[in-house]
Amino acid sequence: MQTPIPDIVVSRLPVYFQTLQTMQAEGQHTTSSKELGEKLGISAAQIRKDLSQFGEFGKQGTGYIISFLIDQLKTILNMDHSWDVAVIGAGNLGKAIAHYHGFAPQGFNIKLVFDTSPDLIGTNIGDLNILDIDELIPCIKKAGVKIAMLTVPDAAAQAVADELVKAGIEGILNYTSTPLNLPPRVVHLRHSDPVSQLQHMTYYIGKSK
Amino acid sequence: MQTPIPDIVVSRLPVYFQTLQTMQAEGQHTTSSKELGEKLGISAAQIRKDLSQFGEFGKQGTGYIISFLIDQLKTILNMDHSWDVAVIGAGNLGKAIAHYHGFAPQGFNIKLVFDTSPDLIGTNIGDLNILDIDELIPCIKKAGVKIAMLTVPDAAAQAVADELVKAGIEGILNYTSTPLNLPPRVVHLRHSDPVSQLQHMTYYIGKSK
Repeated sequence: MQTPIPDIVVSRLPVYFQTLQTMQAEGQHTTSSKELGEKLGISAAQIRKDLSQFGEFGKQGTGYIISFLIDQLKTILNMDHSWDVAVIGAGNLGKAIAHYHGFAPQGFNIKLVFDTSPDLIGTNIGDLNILDIDELIPCIKKAGVKIAMLTVPDAAAQAVADELVKAGIEGILNYTSTPLNLPPRVVHLRHSDPVSQLQHMTYYIGKSK
Repeated sequence: MQTPIPDIVVSRLPVYFQTLQTMQAEGQHTTSSKELGEKLGISAAQIRKDLSQFGEFGKQGTGYIISFLIDQLKTILNMDHSWDVAVIGAGNLGKAIAHYHGFAPQGFNIKLVFDTSPDLIGTNIGDLNILDIDELIPCIKKAGVKIAMLTVPDAAAQAVADELVKAGIEGILNYTSTPLNLPPRVVHLRHSDPVSQLQHMTYYIGKSK
Protein backbone atom coordinates (compact mmCIF):
# COMPACT_ATOMS: atom_id res chain seq x y z
CA MET A 1 0.00 0.00 0.00
CA GLN A 2 1.19 3.50 -0.84
CA THR A 3 1.79 6.10 1.86
CA PRO A 4 -1.16 8.51 1.73
CA ILE A 5 -0.39 11.93 0.25
CA PRO A 6 -0.41 14.60 3.02
CA ASP A 7 -3.74 16.44 3.17
CA ILE A 8 -1.98 19.81 2.95
CA VAL A 9 -0.66 18.76 -0.49
CA VAL A 10 -4.13 17.60 -1.57
CA SER A 11 -5.56 20.96 -0.47
CA ARG A 12 -3.28 22.77 -2.95
CA LEU A 13 -4.25 20.67 -6.00
CA PRO A 14 -7.60 22.44 -6.62
CA VAL A 15 -5.72 25.75 -6.60
CA TYR A 16 -3.22 24.50 -9.20
CA PHE A 17 -6.09 23.01 -11.21
CA GLN A 18 -8.07 26.25 -11.30
CA THR A 19 -5.02 28.39 -12.06
CA LEU A 20 -4.09 26.14 -15.00
CA GLN A 21 -7.67 26.32 -16.30
CA THR A 22 -7.49 30.13 -16.22
CA MET A 23 -4.17 30.04 -18.10
CA GLN A 24 -5.68 27.70 -20.71
CA ALA A 25 -8.76 29.93 -21.08
CA GLU A 26 -6.35 32.81 -21.76
CA GLY A 27 -4.79 30.82 -24.63
CA GLN A 28 -1.58 29.74 -22.88
CA HIS A 29 -0.17 26.27 -23.76
CA THR A 30 2.78 25.70 -21.42
CA THR A 31 3.86 26.94 -18.01
CA SER A 32 6.58 26.37 -15.43
CA SER A 33 6.67 25.81 -11.70
CA LYS A 34 8.30 29.25 -11.51
CA GLU A 35 5.40 30.97 -13.28
CA LEU A 36 2.76 29.05 -11.30
CA GLY A 37 4.60 29.84 -8.08
CA GLU A 38 4.70 33.56 -8.83
CA LYS A 39 0.99 33.61 -9.58
CA LEU A 40 0.17 31.76 -6.35
CA GLY A 41 2.74 33.07 -3.91
CA ILE A 42 4.10 29.51 -3.44
CA SER A 43 7.72 28.54 -4.12
CA ALA A 44 8.50 26.79 -7.41
CA ALA A 45 10.22 24.00 -5.45
CA GLN A 46 7.03 23.40 -3.44
CA ILE A 47 4.93 23.12 -6.59
CA ARG A 48 7.38 20.67 -8.19
CA LYS A 49 7.46 18.62 -4.99
CA ASP A 50 3.64 18.59 -4.68
CA LEU A 51 3.10 17.47 -8.28
CA SER A 52 5.92 14.90 -8.19
CA GLN A 53 3.95 12.99 -5.55
CA PHE A 54 1.52 12.02 -8.30
CA GLY A 55 3.86 11.36 -11.23
CA GLU A 56 6.25 12.92 -13.74
CA PHE A 57 4.28 15.74 -15.30
CA GLY A 58 6.93 18.17 -16.52
CA LYS A 59 10.36 18.22 -18.11
CA GLN A 60 13.44 20.09 -16.95
CA GLY A 61 13.71 23.14 -19.20
CA THR A 62 10.39 22.80 -21.04
CA GLY A 63 8.06 22.91 -18.03
CA TYR A 64 4.46 21.67 -18.07
CA ILE A 65 2.06 21.24 -20.99
CA ILE A 66 -1.05 22.88 -19.52
CA SER A 67 -3.70 20.67 -21.20
CA PHE A 68 -1.88 17.50 -20.10
CA LEU A 69 -1.47 18.69 -16.51
CA ILE A 70 -5.15 19.72 -16.36
CA ASP A 71 -6.18 16.22 -17.55
CA GLN A 72 -3.94 14.59 -14.96
CA LEU A 73 -5.29 16.78 -12.13
CA LYS A 74 -8.85 16.11 -13.32
CA THR A 75 -8.24 12.38 -12.86
CA ILE A 76 -6.41 12.79 -9.54
CA LEU A 77 -9.20 14.98 -8.11
CA ASN A 78 -11.90 12.69 -9.57
CA MET A 79 -13.21 15.60 -11.58
CA ASP A 80 -13.24 13.59 -14.84
CA HIS A 81 -17.01 13.28 -14.28
CA SER A 82 -19.51 15.67 -12.73
CA TRP A 83 -20.90 15.44 -9.18
CA ASP A 84 -24.41 16.14 -7.95
CA VAL A 85 -24.71 18.18 -4.77
CA ALA A 86 -27.50 18.69 -2.23
CA VAL A 87 -27.84 21.98 -0.32
CA ILE A 88 -29.35 21.56 3.14
CA GLY A 89 -30.89 24.79 4.41
CA ALA A 90 -32.40 27.43 2.13
CA GLY A 91 -31.65 30.49 4.27
CA ASN A 92 -29.54 33.40 3.02
CA LEU A 93 -26.40 31.30 2.61
CA GLY A 94 -28.22 28.32 1.08
CA LYS A 95 -29.83 30.68 -1.43
CA ALA A 96 -26.50 32.29 -2.26
CA ILE A 97 -25.00 28.84 -2.88
CA ALA A 98 -27.94 27.71 -5.02
CA HIS A 99 -27.62 30.87 -7.13
CA TYR A 100 -23.84 30.72 -7.45
CA HIS A 101 -22.78 30.30 -11.09
CA GLY A 102 -19.31 29.00 -10.31
CA PHE A 103 -20.27 25.37 -9.59
CA ALA A 104 -21.66 24.04 -12.89
CA PRO A 105 -18.65 24.99 -15.08
CA GLN A 106 -16.48 23.03 -12.61
CA GLY A 107 -18.68 19.94 -12.74
CA PHE A 108 -20.75 20.42 -9.57
CA ASN A 109 -24.51 20.38 -10.14
CA ILE A 110 -26.80 21.56 -7.37
CA LYS A 111 -29.52 18.92 -7.64
CA LEU A 112 -31.54 19.14 -4.41
CA VAL A 113 -32.30 21.89 -1.88
CA PHE A 114 -33.99 21.17 1.46
CA ASP A 115 -35.47 23.29 4.23
CA THR A 116 -37.74 22.89 7.25
CA SER A 117 -39.82 26.04 6.76
CA PRO A 118 -43.38 25.53 5.42
CA ASP A 119 -43.04 29.01 3.86
CA LEU A 120 -40.11 27.83 1.75
CA ILE A 121 -40.97 24.19 0.97
CA GLY A 122 -42.49 23.97 -2.52
CA THR A 123 -41.14 27.39 -3.59
CA ASN A 124 -38.34 27.71 -6.14
CA ILE A 125 -34.73 28.90 -6.06
CA GLY A 126 -33.93 29.34 -9.73
CA ASP A 127 -35.00 26.04 -11.31
CA LEU A 128 -34.84 24.11 -8.04
CA ASN A 129 -37.89 23.26 -5.99
CA ILE A 130 -37.21 23.46 -2.24
CA LEU A 131 -37.92 20.05 -0.67
CA ASP A 132 -39.09 19.15 2.82
CA ILE A 133 -36.18 18.15 5.03
CA ASP A 134 -38.39 15.32 6.34
CA GLU A 135 -37.91 13.75 2.89
CA LEU A 136 -34.13 14.09 3.05
CA ILE A 137 -33.17 10.42 3.25
CA PRO A 138 -35.45 9.02 0.49
CA CYS A 139 -34.82 11.98 -1.85
CA ILE A 140 -31.03 11.83 -1.55
CA LYS A 141 -30.98 8.04 -1.88
CA LYS A 142 -33.20 8.14 -4.95
CA ALA A 143 -31.09 10.86 -6.61
CA GLY A 144 -27.86 9.05 -5.66
CA VAL A 145 -26.29 12.33 -4.49
CA LYS A 146 -23.00 11.85 -2.60
CA ILE A 147 -22.06 15.43 -1.62
CA ALA A 148 -23.95 17.86 0.64
CA MET A 149 -23.41 21.48 1.62
CA LEU A 150 -24.73 22.13 5.10
CA THR A 151 -26.16 25.60 5.84
CA VAL A 152 -28.69 24.82 8.58
CA PRO A 153 -28.77 26.59 11.99
CA ASP A 154 -25.87 25.51 14.25
CA ALA A 155 -28.13 23.72 16.72
CA ALA A 156 -29.55 21.45 14.01
CA ALA A 157 -26.22 20.65 12.31
CA GLN A 158 -25.27 17.39 14.03
CA ALA A 159 -28.74 15.84 13.74
CA VAL A 160 -29.02 16.73 10.05
CA ALA A 161 -25.49 15.44 9.41
CA ASP A 162 -26.43 12.10 11.01
CA GLU A 163 -29.38 11.91 8.58
CA LEU A 164 -27.05 12.70 5.67
CA VAL A 165 -24.85 9.76 6.60
CA LYS A 166 -27.91 7.49 6.65
CA ALA A 167 -28.85 8.85 3.22
CA GLY A 168 -25.49 7.69 1.84
CA ILE A 169 -23.77 11.09 1.64
CA GLU A 170 -19.96 10.70 1.48
CA GLY A 171 -18.79 14.30 1.61
CA ILE A 172 -20.11 17.25 3.66
CA LEU A 173 -19.02 20.85 3.29
CA ASN A 174 -20.04 22.22 6.67
CA TYR A 175 -20.85 25.96 6.77
CA THR A 176 -22.18 25.89 10.34
CA SER A 177 -20.12 26.67 13.47
CA THR A 178 -20.82 23.18 14.83
CA PRO A 179 -17.91 20.76 14.57
CA LEU A 180 -19.51 17.54 13.30
CA ASN A 181 -18.77 14.17 14.82
CA LEU A 182 -19.23 11.59 12.09
CA PRO A 183 -17.62 8.26 11.17
CA PRO A 184 -14.38 9.35 9.41
CA ARG A 185 -14.20 6.35 7.08
CA VAL A 186 -17.70 7.03 5.81
CA VAL A 187 -17.79 10.78 5.35
CA HIS A 188 -15.19 13.31 4.23
CA LEU A 189 -15.70 16.62 5.97
CA ARG A 190 -14.59 20.11 5.13
CA HIS A 191 -15.43 22.80 7.68
CA SER A 192 -16.02 26.25 6.25
CA ASP A 193 -17.28 28.18 9.24
CA PRO A 194 -16.47 31.88 8.64
CA VAL A 195 -16.00 32.57 12.38
CA SER A 196 -13.29 29.88 12.67
CA GLN A 197 -11.60 31.23 9.57
CA LEU A 198 -11.63 34.78 10.92
CA GLN A 199 -10.24 33.59 14.27
CA HIS A 200 -7.54 31.68 12.43
CA MET A 201 -6.55 35.04 10.87
CA THR A 202 -6.77 37.11 14.05
CA TYR A 203 -4.20 34.76 15.60
CA TYR A 204 -1.68 36.03 13.06
CA ILE A 205 -2.87 39.63 12.76
CA GLY A 206 -2.59 40.18 16.49
CA LYS A 207 0.87 38.56 16.57
CA SER A 208 2.34 40.88 13.97
CA LYS A 209 1.56 43.99 16.05
CA MET B 1 12.91 33.71 18.95
CA GLN B 2 10.36 30.95 19.40
CA THR B 3 9.69 28.42 16.66
CA PRO B 4 6.36 29.35 15.07
CA ILE B 5 3.43 27.08 15.95
CA PRO B 6 2.44 24.99 12.88
CA ASP B 7 -0.51 26.51 11.04
CA ILE B 8 -2.42 23.23 11.19
CA VAL B 9 -2.37 23.52 15.01
CA VAL B 10 -3.52 27.15 14.85
CA SER B 11 -6.38 26.10 12.56
CA ARG B 12 -7.73 23.78 15.28
CA LEU B 13 -7.75 26.41 18.05
CA PRO B 14 -10.96 28.16 16.91
CA VAL B 15 -12.67 24.75 16.91
CA TYR B 16 -11.57 24.06 20.49
CA PHE B 17 -12.54 27.60 21.46
CA GLN B 18 -16.06 27.31 20.04
CA THR B 19 -16.62 23.85 21.47
CA LEU B 20 -15.60 25.03 24.95
CA GLN B 21 -17.95 28.00 24.63
CA THR B 22 -20.82 25.65 23.81
CA MET B 23 -19.96 23.47 26.83
CA GLN B 24 -19.88 26.58 29.04
CA ALA B 25 -23.22 27.80 27.67
CA GLU B 26 -24.63 24.38 28.60
CA GLY B 27 -23.49 24.90 32.19
CA GLN B 28 -20.43 22.64 32.16
CA HIS B 29 -17.40 23.71 34.27
CA THR B 30 -14.63 21.22 33.50
CA THR B 31 -13.72 18.94 30.61
CA SER B 32 -10.97 16.58 29.52
CA SER B 33 -8.96 16.04 26.36
CA LYS B 34 -10.84 12.72 26.08
CA GLU B 35 -14.28 14.39 26.12
CA LEU B 36 -13.19 17.16 23.74
CA GLY B 37 -11.66 14.57 21.45
CA GLU B 38 -14.84 12.50 21.33
CA LYS B 39 -16.92 15.55 20.50
CA LEU B 40 -14.56 16.60 17.73
CA GLY B 41 -13.38 13.30 16.29
CA ILE B 42 -9.76 14.17 17.18
CA SER B 43 -7.57 12.02 19.44
CA ALA B 44 -7.16 13.13 23.07
CA ALA B 45 -3.37 12.97 22.61
CA GLN B 46 -3.57 15.39 19.68
CA ILE B 47 -5.61 17.88 21.71
CA ARG B 48 -3.18 17.71 24.64
CA LYS B 49 -0.25 18.16 22.26
CA ASP B 50 -1.89 21.12 20.49
CA LEU B 51 -2.72 22.94 23.73
CA SER B 52 0.66 22.19 25.34
CA GLN B 53 2.31 24.28 22.61
CA PHE B 54 0.82 27.35 24.30
CA GLY B 55 1.24 26.49 27.98
CA GLU B 56 0.12 24.24 30.81
CA PHE B 57 -3.66 24.51 30.81
CA GLY B 58 -4.80 21.27 32.42
CA LYS B 59 -3.85 18.88 35.17
CA GLN B 60 -3.41 15.12 34.96
CA GLY B 61 -6.58 13.63 36.41
CA THR B 62 -8.63 16.82 36.81
CA GLY B 63 -8.61 17.96 33.18
CA TYR B 64 -9.32 21.51 32.06
CA ILE B 65 -11.29 24.27 33.79
CA ILE B 66 -13.43 25.48 30.90
CA SER B 67 -13.63 29.20 31.82
CA PHE B 68 -9.84 29.35 32.27
CA LEU B 69 -9.14 27.59 28.97
CA ILE B 70 -11.62 29.87 27.14
CA ASP B 71 -9.82 32.95 28.54
CA GLN B 72 -6.46 31.57 27.49
CA LEU B 73 -7.66 30.78 23.97
CA LYS B 74 -9.27 34.21 23.74
CA THR B 75 -5.88 35.80 24.38
CA ILE B 76 -4.01 33.42 22.08
CA LEU B 77 -6.45 34.06 19.22
CA ASN B 78 -6.50 37.81 19.93
CA MET B 79 -10.21 37.60 20.55
CA ASP B 80 -9.97 39.47 23.86
CA HIS B 81 -11.27 42.50 21.95
CA SER B 82 -13.69 42.76 19.04
CA TRP B 83 -12.72 43.22 15.39
CA ASP B 84 -14.41 45.32 12.73
CA VAL B 85 -14.89 43.70 9.34
CA ALA B 86 -15.57 45.05 5.84
CA VAL B 87 -17.54 43.01 3.28
CA ILE B 88 -16.53 43.72 -0.31
CA GLY B 89 -19.28 42.79 -2.76
CA ALA B 90 -22.99 42.93 -1.91
CA GLY B 91 -24.18 40.12 -4.18
CA ASN B 92 -25.99 37.03 -2.84
CA LEU B 93 -23.03 35.86 -0.76
CA GLY B 94 -22.15 39.35 0.50
CA LYS B 95 -25.76 39.80 1.59
CA ALA B 96 -25.82 36.41 3.32
CA ILE B 97 -22.65 37.37 5.23
CA ALA B 98 -24.00 40.80 6.18
CA HIS B 99 -27.20 39.17 7.50
CA TYR B 100 -25.43 36.33 9.35
CA HIS B 101 -26.07 36.53 13.09
CA GLY B 102 -23.08 34.38 14.07
CA PHE B 103 -20.41 37.08 13.83
CA ALA B 104 -21.34 39.64 16.50
CA PRO B 105 -21.55 37.19 19.45
CA GLN B 106 -18.01 36.08 18.55
CA GLY B 107 -16.68 39.64 18.44
CA PHE B 108 -16.73 40.31 14.69
CA ASN B 109 -18.69 43.43 13.70
CA ILE B 110 -19.58 43.95 10.07
CA LYS B 111 -18.89 47.67 9.79
CA LEU B 112 -18.70 48.44 6.08
CA VAL B 113 -20.19 46.91 2.91
CA PHE B 114 -19.08 47.93 -0.58
CA ASP B 115 -20.31 47.29 -4.10
CA THR B 116 -19.84 48.67 -7.62
CA SER B 117 -23.48 48.60 -8.71
CA PRO B 118 -25.29 51.98 -8.83
CA ASP B 119 -28.51 50.03 -8.06
CA LEU B 120 -27.06 48.86 -4.75
CA ILE B 121 -24.93 51.81 -3.60
CA GLY B 122 -26.87 53.88 -1.06
CA THR B 123 -29.37 51.09 -0.31
CA ASN B 124 -29.33 49.21 2.99
CA ILE B 125 -28.55 45.66 4.12
CA GLY B 126 -30.00 45.54 7.61
CA ASP B 127 -28.53 48.65 9.29
CA LEU B 128 -25.62 48.94 6.89
CA ASN B 129 -25.54 51.39 4.02
CA ILE B 130 -23.86 49.94 0.91
CA LEU B 131 -20.91 52.14 -0.02
CA ASP B 132 -19.33 52.86 -3.41
CA ILE B 133 -16.28 50.65 -4.00
CA ASP B 134 -14.55 53.76 -5.42
CA GLU B 135 -14.50 55.05 -1.83
CA LEU B 136 -12.93 51.82 -0.52
CA ILE B 137 -9.52 53.14 0.48
CA PRO B 138 -10.59 56.34 2.32
CA CYS B 139 -13.58 54.62 4.03
CA ILE B 140 -11.55 51.66 5.31
CA LYS B 141 -8.68 53.90 6.42
CA LYS B 142 -11.05 56.24 8.25
CA ALA B 143 -12.85 53.36 10.00
CA GLY B 144 -9.55 51.65 10.86
CA VAL B 145 -10.91 48.28 9.72
CA LYS B 146 -8.23 45.56 9.45
CA ILE B 147 -10.21 42.53 8.18
CA ALA B 148 -12.09 42.14 4.89
CA MET B 149 -14.30 39.40 3.45
CA LEU B 150 -14.02 39.33 -0.33
CA THR B 151 -17.12 38.29 -2.30
CA VAL B 152 -16.58 40.15 -5.59
CA PRO B 153 -16.65 38.45 -9.04
CA ASP B 154 -13.54 36.32 -9.66
CA ALA B 155 -12.20 38.60 -12.38
CA ALA B 156 -12.17 41.61 -10.02
CA ALA B 157 -10.67 39.82 -7.01
CA GLN B 158 -6.95 40.58 -7.45
CA ALA B 159 -7.48 44.28 -8.26
CA VAL B 160 -9.81 44.77 -5.27
CA ALA B 161 -7.39 42.86 -3.00
CA ASP B 162 -4.57 45.20 -4.09
CA GLU B 163 -6.77 48.15 -3.06
CA LEU B 164 -7.47 46.49 0.29
CA VAL B 165 -3.75 46.26 0.97
CA LYS B 166 -3.39 49.98 0.18
CA ALA B 167 -6.27 50.65 2.58
CA GLY B 168 -4.34 48.98 5.42
CA ILE B 169 -6.29 45.70 5.55
CA GLU B 170 -4.25 42.96 7.29
CA GLY B 171 -6.51 39.92 6.87
CA ILE B 172 -8.59 38.83 3.88
CA LEU B 173 -11.08 35.96 3.86
CA ASN B 174 -11.27 35.24 0.13
CA TYR B 175 -14.55 33.71 -1.08
CA THR B 176 -13.68 34.04 -4.78
CA SER B 177 -12.08 31.30 -6.91
CA THR B 178 -9.12 33.56 -7.66
CA PRO B 179 -5.95 32.72 -5.73
CA LEU B 180 -4.67 36.11 -4.54
CA ASN B 181 -1.06 37.14 -4.87
CA LEU B 182 -0.34 39.60 -2.06
CA PRO B 183 2.65 40.47 0.13
CA PRO B 184 2.58 37.66 2.77
CA ARG B 185 4.10 39.76 5.55
CA VAL B 186 1.41 42.40 5.14
CA VAL B 187 -1.77 40.38 4.69
CA HIS B 188 -2.98 37.11 6.19
CA LEU B 189 -5.11 35.22 3.72
CA ARG B 190 -7.68 32.49 4.13
CA HIS B 191 -9.14 31.06 0.96
CA SER B 192 -12.73 29.86 1.25
CA ASP B 193 -13.63 29.06 -2.33
CA PRO B 194 -16.41 26.41 -2.28
CA VAL B 195 -15.24 24.84 -5.56
CA SER B 196 -11.73 24.20 -4.16
CA GLN B 197 -13.25 22.75 -1.01
CA LEU B 198 -15.52 20.43 -2.98
CA GLN B 199 -12.59 19.30 -5.15
CA HIS B 200 -10.56 18.68 -2.02
CA MET B 201 -13.36 16.29 -0.94
CA THR B 202 -13.82 14.58 -4.32
CA TYR B 203 -10.14 13.58 -4.16
CA TYR B 204 -10.98 11.40 -1.14
CA ILE B 205 -14.50 10.32 -2.12
CA GLY B 206 -13.31 8.98 -5.46
CA LYS B 207 -10.36 7.18 -3.81
CA SER B 208 -12.55 5.26 -1.39
CA LYS B 209 -14.53 3.61 -4.23
